[in-house]
This record gives sequence, structure tokens and C-alpha cells, in this order.
Amino acid sequence: MPLINRLAIIGVGLIGGSLALALRRQGMVGEVVGIGRGEANLRRGVELGVIDRYSLDPCEGVRGADLIFIATPVCTIAGIIARIAPFLSPGAIVTDGGSVKEEIVAASEPLMPSGTFFVGGHPIAGTEHSGVEAAFADLYENRRCILTPTPQTDPTALALVSRIWEAAGSQVVLMDVHKHDRVLAAISHLPHMVAYSLVNAVGGYDRFDESILRYSAGGFRDFTRIASSDPVMWRDIALMNREALLEMMDFFADSLSHLRRLVAAGESDGLERFFADSKELRDGIE
Amino acid sequence: MPLINRLAIIGVGLIGGSLALALRRQGMVGEVVGIGRGEANLRRGVELGVIDRYSLDPCEGVRGADLIFIATPVCTIAGIIARIAPFLSPGAIVTDGGSVKEEIVAASEPLMPSGTFFVGGHPIAGTEHSGVEAAFADLYENRRCILTPTPQTDPTALALVSRIWEAAGSQVVLMDVHKHDRVLAAISHLPHMVAYSLVNAVGGYDRFDESILRYSAGGFRDFTRIASSDPVMWRDIALMNREALLEMMDFFADSLSHLRRLVAAGESDGLERFFADSKELRDGIE
Repeated sequence: MPLINRLAIIGVGLIGGSLALALRRQGMVGEVVGIGRGEANLRRGVELGVIDRYSLDPCEGVRGADLIFIATPVCTIAGIIARIAPFLSPGAIVTDGGSVKEEIVAASEPLMPSGTFFVGGHPIAGTEHSGVEAAFADLYENRRCILTPTPQTDPTALALVSRIWEAAGSQVVLMDVHKHDRVLAAISHLPHMVAYSLVNAVGGYDRFDESILRYSAGGFRDFTRIASSDPVMWRDIALMNREALLEMMDFFADSLSHLRRLVAAGESDGLERFFADSKELRDGIE
Repeated sequence: MPLINRLAIIGVGLIGGSLALALRRQGMVGEVVGIGRGEANLRRGVELGVIDRYSLDPCEGVRGADLIFIATPVCTIAGIIARIAPFLSPGAIVTDGGSVKEEIVAASEPLMPSGTFFVGGHPIAGTEHSGVEAAFADLYENRRCILTPTPQTDPTALALVSRIWEAAGSQVVLMDVHKHDRVLAAISHLPHMVAYSLVNAVGGYDRFDESILRYSAGGFRDFTRIASSDPVMWRDIALMNREALLEMMDFFADSLSHLRRLVAAGESDGLERFFADSKELRDGIE
């Protein structure tokens, strides 16, 4: 008998579809129900064997599911939980893949009916592609998945969610929501803000009669690749993780100001030390 | 008869060695003399067929050379020209590969004896490797090489230097030194400062009992790859291109502050527009 009798995936794209494929491969799920708004995408999900059937109505789709994985944009997750809550089966576990946790977890926990459980999660994985066609069973192999239990989290539900992510190939890390949001602000959200700002600054430089960007070589292109990310997704992340992001942006701005002072003062030794320290930190990343 | 009878390369590494290999392949050079301080590297250059012979003494090495290419760290170039100037043959052309031009060109032009010529240059190419072992004939294929003539530049010398870079596979772009230094500050020097500062900020965040960097996934690692660059080289570039770099750092800081204000104010539309504009600029890079 599979660990999960019926899995409901809300948002059958890269993230949701890949978890379904990984768990199917492990024989851990009985039936997979896909839930979404785009019927063509869901139909394609059935054709590709990612899901067994689908529903356009989340309330109907979650009926009888043991585990519900919500893989929709961060700003929609709590709203979806509010809608589906009355339709959850006793013992149902809801988890999500949102990349911001404090606000989602705080909003979602009180919405859960007695005898159902919420576990906040965030698999650190992705590609530049989206949609169910982009899903693949190996996406989570050798990645980290951060789960963010609170004092209210049910230990059995947490153990089950941990187990599915481990089955998908990930290393599970437990972290409180506050720390999660700061870690992600630092390693992911801040770099995106920096890349968007850099392209904005260089593209907006207008003291020549042509755009400087036409001279950008491979290095600049590589460095600013993440500035090609989806503006709507990043708007939502910036708004939802505002406090942590502002803290990290200020940390970064201080570091940049410090470097600016070294350059302005022609501090040869200080500059070399600054660059060498950063290089050492960077080279030390596993 | 080859275009260049004797080519002297001062600094036989990736940049100098690759030009020698490219010109040899085109049959454009008679003899190639390597000049440097590391005898083992020069000996390896002879073994690899990058150079024909070598000298540890630049004054002796440039004797009888038609063309001298200086591919040493930016802060050493003008000093080398001062040393070799008295030993240049009549008609000799000196060019360089320094990534900062205003200061080098201003210092070098007055040093040239009458009847010898200087042309400032900067091939926009490189890899993360260095030394003669890293040199290869294709390095400059389909890259840009910026030459920075001044009103003092001899047109025949400029034409010859253009011709060798074209023979190496590059598109030659003429630019005044002032513009060169700002363009490079924007597309190369600023991104390095940003990457160094970002690693410094994230690595220096100390409000948790462990370094945030241990959670950095592939995205952060890719984004900060250039923070692994040589600290001494970047110290020299930051010092030599100080004025342009400070201008670009301020431009970037303004852009980042603007974005910070949008995040702080929760300006949903403004954020989406900022990200969408940057994405459009980024996607527009050839």
C-alpha cells in the first residue's frame, strides 16, 4: 500500500508536477489529482502521466486527498487554503512550496480545521522553464528542501512531509519561518534585486549617444541572467518578503558603500583585502 | 613575407599568448619573442610553440621588433613603456591589452620616441584561466577589440593594429579613452564590485549562529562566480579606473535605492514595471 493514497497537487507546473513524478517513481502515491485553472495544461499533465485526473475546482479536487501540495504563486497560497479548508478530509495534510514563509505560515495555520494539518515548505530547486511540460522526476535530487515547523505543527504531519521530500531526493532542513525568510532574502531575493538594478542602471546610463548595453560581453550577460526572471513572480516575492528583503538590501548597500569609500580613497591594501575576503568566502561555498 | 617580421609579446599569458597563436596561424608573423619575468612560463611558451624564443629583459627583448604587444597588469604598462622606449627600433608600434585606457594612454603617448608609435587597445576576451598554458588561437574569435586612438595616434599604426585584431577574429571598435573607461566600468568593473560586495554582505550577515552562505544554492553560486576573480588584478583596475567606476557605482546605488523605495512602499505596479523594464533590457542584449 502506498504511503499516500491520494495526492492533490494544486498548481501543476514545474514544481508541483516534478514532485508528483518523483513520488510516483518511488511508488509512494496511489492516485494523483491535479488542480489548476488552465485546462489545457492539466490535460497535458494527464497525457504526460504526471497526474491521473484533474479538477478545475480546488474544493472538489481536494476531496479525499491525504496530502495536498500547493505549488502556486506565493501571494495565492493562503487564499487557496482558506477556500479548500472546509473540504479537507479528516487527517489531511496540506503543505506548500512557497519561497516566502513567515506570512504564508502565519496566515495558513489558523485556517486549518481541527484534525487537519499544515506544514510550510520550500524546495530549493527550479529551472528557467515552467508549466507541466517542464516537470521531471529528478528536479529535487540532491537539493535542499526547507520545512518551517512552528510550535503548532503536528509532529506526525511534519514527519510525513519530510519523508516525501527525502523520497524525492532532497535533504530536508528544518528552519523557523523568520530565519527561512532571511536566508532566502540573502541568497536568492537580494541577488535578483541586485541584477534587476544593475541592468536598470547600465541600461539607463544616457551620457553617450548609444546604449552601453550594446557593448556588454558574455560576462555581463551571464551575471545578469536572473534579471530575465518573471517580473510578476518577483513583484510578489518582494512584497511578501518585504521586511527581510529590506534588511538584506540595507546590508548589501552598506557593503557597497564601504567598497565605494575604499575606491574613492584609493585604499590599495583595503581594496585588496576586501576582494580577497570575498573571494575566500565565495570559493568556500560547497 | 609576413605582415610583422618580429612580434614581441610582453607578458606571455592567456591574453598575450593567444594573440601570438592567432597571428601565427594566420601566417602574419615571422618571429615571436616572449618577454616576462617567469622563466618557467616562458620556457613552456617555447615548448608549446606560442613563442620562438624569450628574454627576461624587456629592453633586450624588444630589439628589432616591429610590433610590441604589452599584456601585463594594467598598473605596469606605462612603466614598461618608459623602460623599453629607448630600445625601440625606428617605426616600431607598441600596443597593449589593458582594460583601463585613459590613464595608460595619457601616460604612454608622451613616452614614445619620435618615429615610434603607440596605439591603446583592449580585447574584450578572457577565460577564468591564466598563464601560457591557457592560451589558445581562438580566444579572440567573434569578440570585440576596442582600440582607443587619440588625435596623436598615427593612422598607419592604427590601421596595422586594427588589422592584426581582425586577423585574430575580432571586430575592431574605435572609441575614445573616456568612453572606453565608462563603458568598461559599466559592463565589467561595476558587476565585479557588485559581486564582491554581495558575497561580502551575505557572508558577513551574523544574526544567526551559522553562515547563511551554507544555504546558497546554484543560483547564488553562479551569480557570484566573478567574485572569485583575482583580488590583485581587481584592486589595480579599481584604482586605475577610479573616476569612471565611482560614477557607475553611484548610478547603480541610485537604481538600487529607487528599487528599495518601491519595496518599502509596497508599490506593486512600480515594482512590476521596474522588473519588467529590466527584463526587457536584459532580454534585448544580443
